[in-house]
Amino acid sequence: MLMPMAEGNGSEREFGGQMPRKDTSDAEAFNRWYIAAIRRSKLADYFEPVGGTMVIRPYGFSLWENMQAALDRRFKATGHSNAYFPLFVPESFLRREAEHVEGFAPEVAWVTQAGGEPLAERLAIRPTSETIFGHFYSQWIQSWRDLPMLINQWANVVRWEKRTVFFLRTTEFLWQEGHTAHRTYEEAQDETLRMLDVYADFAETELALPVVRGEKSASERFPGADATYAIEALMPDGKALQSGTSHNLGQNFARAFDIDFLDQDGERKLCWTTSWGMSTRILGGMLMEHGDDSGLVLPPRVAPTQLVIVPIPARSPEDQATVDGVVGRLVRELGDAGLRVQADCTDNRPGWKFNEWELKGAPLRMEVGPRDVAADQVTLVRRDSRAKEQVPLDGVSRRTGELLDTVQASIFDRARAFLDANTHDVEDYATFQEVMQTQRGFLRAYWCGSSACERRIKEETRATIRVVPFDADADGPGRCICDDAPATQRVLFAQSY
Amino acid sequence: MLMPMAEGNGSEREFGGQMPRKDTSDAEAFNRWYIAAIRRSKLADYFEPVGGTMVIRPYGFSLWENMQAALDRRFKATGHSNAYFPLFVPESFLRREAEHVEGFAPEVAWVTQAGGEPLAERLAIRPTSETIFGHFYSQWIQSWRDLPMLINQWANVVRWEKRTVFFLRTTEFLWQEGHTAHRTYEEAQDETLRMLDVYADFAETELALPVVRGEKSASERFPGADATYAIEALMPDGKALQSGTSHNLGQNFARAFDIDFLDQDGERKLCWTTSWGMSTRILGGMLMEHGDDSGLVLPPRVAPTQLVIVPIPARSPEDQATVDGVVGRLVRELGDAGLRVQADCTDNRPGWKFNEWELKGAPLRMEVGPRDVAADQVTLVRRDSRAKEQVPLDGVSRRTGELLDTVQASIFDRARAFLDANTHDVEDYATFQEVMQTQRGFLRAYWCGSSACERRIKEETRATIRVVPFDADADGPGRCICDDAPATQRVLFAQSY
Repeated sequence: MLMPMAEGNGSEREFGGQMPRKDTSDAEAFNRWYIAAIRRSKLADYFEPVGGTMVIRPYGFSLWENMQAALDRRFKATGHSNAYFPLFVPESFLRREAEHVEGFAPEVAWVTQAGGEPLAERLAIRPTSETIFGHFYSQWIQSWRDLPMLINQWANVVRWEKRTVFFLRTTEFLWQEGHTAHRTYEEAQDETLRMLDVYADFAETELALPVVRGEKSASERFPGADATYAIEALMPDGKALQSGTSHNLGQNFARAFDIDFLDQDGERKLCWTTSWGMSTRILGGMLMEHGDDSGLVLPPRVAPTQLVIVPIPARSPEDQATVDGVVGRLVRELGDAGLRVQADCTDNRPGWKFNEWELKGAPLRMEVGPRDVAADQVTLVRRDSRAKEQVPLDGVSRRTGELLDTVQASIFDRARAFLDANTHDVEDYATFQEVMQTQRGFLRAYWCGSSACERRIKEETRATIRVVPFDADADGPGRCICDDAPATQRVLFAQSY
Repeated sequence: MLMPMAEGNGSEREFGGQMPRKDTSDAEAFNRWYIAAIRRSKLADYFEPVGGTMVIRPYGFSLWENMQAALDRRFKATGHSNAYFPLFVPESFLRREAEHVEGFAPEVAWVTQAGGEPLAERLAIRPTSETIFGHFYSQWIQSWRDLPMLINQWANVVRWEKRTVFFLRTTEFLWQEGHTAHRTYEEAQDETLRMLDVYADFAETELALPVVRGEKSASERFPGADATYAIEALMPDGKALQSGTSHNLGQNFARAFDIDFLDQDGERKLCWTTSWGMSTRILGGMLMEHGDDSGLVLPPRVAPTQLVIVPIPARSPEDQATVDGVVGRLVRELGDAGLRVQADCTDNRPGWKFNEWELKGAPLRMEVGPRDVAADQVTLVRRDSRAKEQVPLDGVSRRTGELLDTVQASIFDRARAFLDANTHDVEDYATFQEVMQTQRGFLRAYWCGSSACERRIKEETRATIRVVPFDADADGPGRCICDDAPATQRVLFAQSY
């Protein structure tokens, strides 16, 4: 399509001057870069009148729609259906699972008046929906024939936050939450790990965001879960970002909400349930990971505009008409080939457009000028490496597709190399402390399993156990990094967002 | 795909016995049918703990997803982009447009506590988002180059309701709301009518729901609008259902929120804005319109399952294997042809499955039995007419596609004929009153334009002006049905949901 007007042409005057550099060694500078990249690219804005909330603008929402589609496809391929559950959670529902209410009550926004009257019972704006799903599952599940029940919803949720960071931490955010009920513990556990793998595959394949996976320690468990698993990405400043979680809820919610079923053997049994969620948070992580001094670098698989075509002005009206004709044809041809392509035909200078689309992170730019057209070729420029090449008009859509794949693979490899280079085995606490004060990263260290050590490490280094990897005992027994007690597993520590 | 387990196999015991008849002459009986059809088909359930709210179950949500996709396609084709705006509206925002706050304040749900503390200012859960869009548009729009700004959002909204009817009237509902800003009145008016036409086309083409369109009278205008337009459908009980509205907001919200721009002539001017919305309400209207004594009848273009394949049991294992093989092949072949097909391979009896899928409204059923297979054919049964035909296996996907088109056209024609048969010109008030007490329907009657007459008619007949049609003055001058005063237009009256 031609330049859409939905968001206007960008005359917002507040954004003068250069993008701040992406200086990941300085927290404040890095934050400045992040906020500037998001605001200038018109991805999102804060909503100051309600602290902690934000608007996702069309460019950002289009990105989220592409991410949603890629994730939703995976949910459906693994047998899940979407539904929509109520926004309001009665206070009494939250209270039915003791750990759950303790974990969430401090963050809840409460509706206390409605329709001109005070309410008899406060209603929570859902911070998560285990209790609502539990209520309905207890009605919908009668016999083993109804199992497994595999439902997901895409929804807004609210958790009152003191700090606000675009996408990473906001009071209201968009997410999906899957809730499933099973006949046996084993089935529930399989589901929990299956969805963790779906998240990891989505992050790595679609967002070019390498992740580590594993189980959370008891202190980081979801309130009400028997076990919580997570994928964690490593941001360029060496901090971890929890990017998706999957919980085995055991029979805790089944007990609290009477989710039972008549089994084949004629006995009534409690179900085993799971839940798993991924939010707009991972969108923020993806932006932090790939961007550079010029702005965003979006992974081709989810970029709203994979390729921007910039016509280069010609001197004569005849040459201009030829260029415009070729641009129009290319938009159609590349669009028909399934690419998300856009021609920027505004009256700005080409240099301005180059900057603008680098800021917005379009993975490829195609320049079409009179000399290109005369030579039956166009110029393609990669956003990630700035590599330029001339491509014959004949076969341009094949080559464009190849280059998009190349960009996707390259930014993943770069992020993977960074993660690998910043994951270290650490054997002594002095080194651990030093690394956490300097370049940070993931530290693989022995841990005795005591929450006292976990707490002390957090207090002294701000590092927490991000996950206990599935191969945590592969190195055999060792000594706890903190208290030197015997330890059987190496766990992954990092500071985190 | 084979029978998905997402919603279980349906052993919910509460739904014994026959579906209630769809008796549209008795309001209570009709309501019983509607509720039974929705609950038994597992489309939705009420959430009793919070009066007025409901859950949309996977089968219902899949239907909504198909509707969303069809509507979203039309929004994008007319140049709109999606975004996501905050859920919370500060009370002061609502108060900035006087009519707006007066119209919505009584229905608002208020958040007064959050994060463990009372809030300094109450936050409304959005009942609609003109004020929030206004706030951001005033920041994003600087010059004529930024116009038009054409943004839509898909979101949940809350309006506290006393009565509850699945989809038609609920406290929380899902909808889309488009909000646009323009340089001139004319452009805003064009947009307002363009989106009304988009709604009408969507209702008629996708949902097989014929509608009338026109302008609302002043008393039925959106709070804060200069003009409100609507599409109205006629339900089988002769009551109208407002199914989508489009508002020309003039400069009211632009004034309240300082949405101005620097025009080409160097002057700062206020924008002209519009908004338009369609909700899950129209889903309810579609169900009411097409269903029959056996349950739902879903339009093929949006039905989650367009075709259900029911294997007929064979006597020998060999024949059974042959039948199963053919069923599997058909699921693949028809799926590859782009049809939404599902084989019901549960161990229920075929007769039970026929009933179940009639209840769920699948437009076509395909029976595949040993005798069919031996004759290289299958049996296709239309949901709407129950017409049966044998179709050769060779060319079955072409014939299935044709029959789906036929069902879509037939249910539309039937609804169109009903609407036409129940739209009457009425010249005297006695007849008007009598019709409103009996079969109801749309009554085209002269109206002098006074709100006193409008009020009296409503009090005495429960009929309101649904729309002033665009050709309201086509019949020339006449006399008001109510007070016999000179009148220039025939308007459309009906009782309504």
